[in-house]
Amino acid sequence: MFEYAESDPALTDEEAKSLITGLRTQLLKAQYQHLQKKDRALLILVGGIDGAGKGDTINLLNEWMDPRHIQTMAFPPPTKDERAYPPLYRFWLNLPPKGSTGIVFGSGYAPLIKEAAKKHPDAATLEKMMLTARRYEADLVANGVQVIKLWFHLSRNAQKARVKRLEKNPSTAWKVGPDDHTVSKRFKRLRKAAQRVIETTDADHAPWIIIPAANENMRNVSTAKAVLSALKKRSVRVPVLHDPAEPPVAKRSHNPLDRIDFTASLAKDDYDDALLHWQNRLATAVRHPKFQKHHALMLVFEGQDAAGKGSSIRRITKALDARQYQITPVAAPKQFELDRPYLWRFWRAVPRHGRIAIFDRSWYGRVLVERVEKLITRQTWQRAYTEINAFEQQLSQHGVLIMKFWLAITPDEQLRRFEARQALPFKQYKITDEDWRNRDKWQAYRQATGDMLTYTDTQQAPWHPISANDKRHARIAVIKQIVETVEAAVK
Amino acid sequence: MFEYAESDPALTDEEAKSLITGLRTQLLKAQYQHLQKKDRALLILVGGIDGAGKGDTINLLNEWMDPRHIQTMAFPPPTKDERAYPPLYRFWLNLPPKGSTGIVFGSGYAPLIKEAAKKHPDAATLEKMMLTARRYEADLVANGVQVIKLWFHLSRNAQKARVKRLEKNPSTAWKVGPDDHTVSKRFKRLRKAAQRVIETTDADHAPWIIIPAANENMRNVSTAKAVLSALKKRSVRVPVLHDPAEPPVAKRSHNPLDRIDFTASLAKDDYDDALLHWQNRLATAVRHPKFQKHHALMLVFEGQDAAGKGSSIRRITKALDARQYQITPVAAPKQFELDRPYLWRFWRAVPRHGRIAIFDRSWYGRVLVERVEKLITRQTWQRAYTEINAFEQQLSQHGVLIMKFWLAITPDEQLRRFEARQALPFKQYKITDEDWRNRDKWQAYRQATGDMLTYTDTQQAPWHPISANDKRHARIAVIKQIVETVEAAVK
Repeated sequence: MFEYAESDPALTDEEAKSLITGLRTQLLKAQYQHLQKKDRALLILVGGIDGAGKGDTINLLNEWMDPRHIQTMAFPPPTKDERAYPPLYRFWLNLPPKGSTGIVFGSGYAPLIKEAAKKHPDAATLEKMMLTARRYEADLVANGVQVIKLWFHLSRNAQKARVKRLEKNPSTAWKVGPDDHTVSKRFKRLRKAAQRVIETTDADHAPWIIIPAANENMRNVSTAKAVLSALKKRSVRVPVLHDPAEPPVAKRSHNPLDRIDFTASLAKDDYDDALLHWQNRLATAVRHPKFQKHHALMLVFEGQDAAGKGSSIRRITKALDARQYQITPVAAPKQFELDRPYLWRFWRAVPRHGRIAIFDRSWYGRVLVERVEKLITRQTWQRAYTEINAFEQQLSQHGVLIMKFWLAITPDEQLRRFEARQALPFKQYKITDEDWRNRDKWQAYRQATGDMLTYTDTQQAPWHPISANDKRHARIAVIKQIVETVEAAVK
Repeated sequence: MFEYAESDPALTDEEAKSLITGLRTQLLKAQYQHLQKKDRALLILVGGIDGAGKGDTINLLNEWMDPRHIQTMAFPPPTKDERAYPPLYRFWLNLPPKGSTGIVFGSGYAPLIKEAAKKHPDAATLEKMMLTARRYEADLVANGVQVIKLWFHLSRNAQKARVKRLEKNPSTAWKVGPDDHTVSKRFKRLRKAAQRVIETTDADHAPWIIIPAANENMRNVSTAKAVLSALKKRSVRVPVLHDPAEPPVAKRSHNPLDRIDFTASLAKDDYDDALLHWQNRLATAVRHPKFQKHHALMLVFEGQDAAGKGSSIRRITKALDARQYQITPVAAPKQFELDRPYLWRFWRAVPRHGRIAIFDRSWYGRVLVERVEKLITRQTWQRAYTEINAFEQQLSQHGVLIMKFWLAITPDEQLRRFEARQALPFKQYKITDEDWRNRDKWQAYRQATGDMLTYTDTQQAPWHPISANDKRHARIAVIKQIVETVEAAVK
């Protein structure tokens, strides 16, 4: 795999010069077409042996292309604040919009190579890391971000010589870091580690390309060619994920909505007592030091129109400090959100440790309204179950407690509430023509909801279908569930 | 000022009920009109005596209005990562877009009150804090963010009683923090501090409104009325800033462009040596621990088309680690940027300590292209000089070294370069019809540039007009200037 690169192939200055003039023109042209079509973003991950010249080549790409549409990023070891978020958070947040190009210096693969290059790498940890990377990239590609991965490689001797050369010249000596020196000593092990990681994370939709890096001309020309070929690709095939480590999905043959007991109710007096009781326990639980340090809470509220999502949320926030939570109401995406993968805007709302994010509607719009209204293809919403489960798993592994509430009401009850709302001046705004239209699609929504409850009810992020015909019953059921989940986590 | 609030006025439940029904309807209606007009955002800063019920009332506003268009924020003491940015950074970044409402819990005034309530407050520090607040708010109001400030107030006895009442009830005891207890002991001093800060930062365009907070009904109704009146305001008058602490502006009667010596040049050999020398010193300087910890670098490149901004930038970045710098190319603002104050998008690109932000064109577009092309009113670009100076002062006070380069070329030289570019396939993209049109406006740009160089050349963020007819001379002049500035700062 590295044989060719380790033969340290070279181009003479003359050979390179004539190639480069053509490549620069083509690169620019391709970049502009890419920008005009705006059907996808291009993400270039640049990894490789330390001291192989990654930085220089990234600078060159910015010189050869129009740097206004290139976003160069680096992800050094996370700071304390960054560690309060799931590891992928900062990668998600910095995705380039459609039409533009992102270059990631260091590629994000450094921790994987580091683990694999240990004397005794932990196989399970490494597997998990590689799986995460594969999932992440597949998700990006399926959602409008093309991914290519460059591995800058050269022979052990060439690496050693390059570092020496850089060090000798006072104007380039700063480019040499401590890692560059240890490379030649650990070359065999690093090479093996890289091979293992590259082989496992190579994919048609997110290929690794080995760049021979010993000779500057060769390195630059090879990189330019790889980028050009990526930009010129007509379309990127959406990967099909058959993921062995799929999160456990409860398989059910019936529609989980059938099981809801709509007769559940609660008397006013019992309700008042219970509400105070649970609000108090909730207030205590989310102030627990263990919650503050190691957990966060993500509460998803879905349900038919007028099911009482907003009023349930208010019963929860009443027990919380306004500084600890954030409500994210979810409506149709804006243009800058459509320019990024679907889950991007939800990643932006992921809470840090100790905080609570409440979603009034959520990423489940993908498999509800977007499916029912045929805003996306069948393939897209079917794939979304896996993507969403993976998203929630990422969060869960970081200690985020994810709870999803489906507030269910019967059609009769909805009608009664619509009519009541129209009579109240300050609630009229809540009823729109769309609400009435949605009522006509009750059955289609019922089917979509059933599938959603079946395919995304996971151990790490369970669905709680709640009968909401009686508001008091629903509110208590919701807050009780939250309290029990948080209390169990901090015990 | 606090007399009425400290009389602890109350409304009976009955009085409140009838008022509130009307207020809720009007609030919603006003919120929707605000949203539809989309001519401004509303920012509500909520401060006040601890234990006066701020949190409860903010929750209520979210209940009474449509919470999907309200963004509730809190700014607790900054984390370590946050302290690497100027203090106002997080406030700027979280501004609500036009049409929507932002509520800031704690108002951001807590540090001011704290300083003012010290036994021996530092007058200079306090003055500076209040000036910063006033400038910040004036800037927001002038740029499409309406500001109101609520101060929740009540008598010492009522505060004490409220805290006791909350504490006694297990379901509200969590609302009582340690600060709530010390309030009654320090009431007189806090009251005096609040009065001082409120009086100095009260302004027509960003008024303080005292909310009597002892009685829940009164508190809620007064808050609703204040918000309603703000939403219903037809338009907000743009404040005129006569700022005593204006940053020092060099007054010149001539156009600074006249002084540029276009004959300056550098021979190829001298250039090569000099470039290596200065790149090396730059690489060393920005790796200095003092730079990493206490400084950041913001480099602004402005100049006529084809003046060589991009190529100068590349000579600098060649000496830098790709992980340490970010180039921000500035073009016409996008819709989501137009929805925020003008400087918002530049605040987003402010570097943290140890980092370098390079701007290929910048916020000076406000007084160049936007002025010359008449995209904004005369009043707006004239005000921009003060706003920009204040912006740069904020950064400078945090250790950010700001250097602004004007790369100047003669009309003949520009023509020569345009023609040369059109002959080179990979540079053709750089020449557009707009560039030719801009040439026709040479004199108008010359005037605007002269004014800019005169009114925004400050000690903390100096302009460096550089003759760029000879590219080699320009590149060395730029990098030398940067090195000398950074070296002086870390000495």
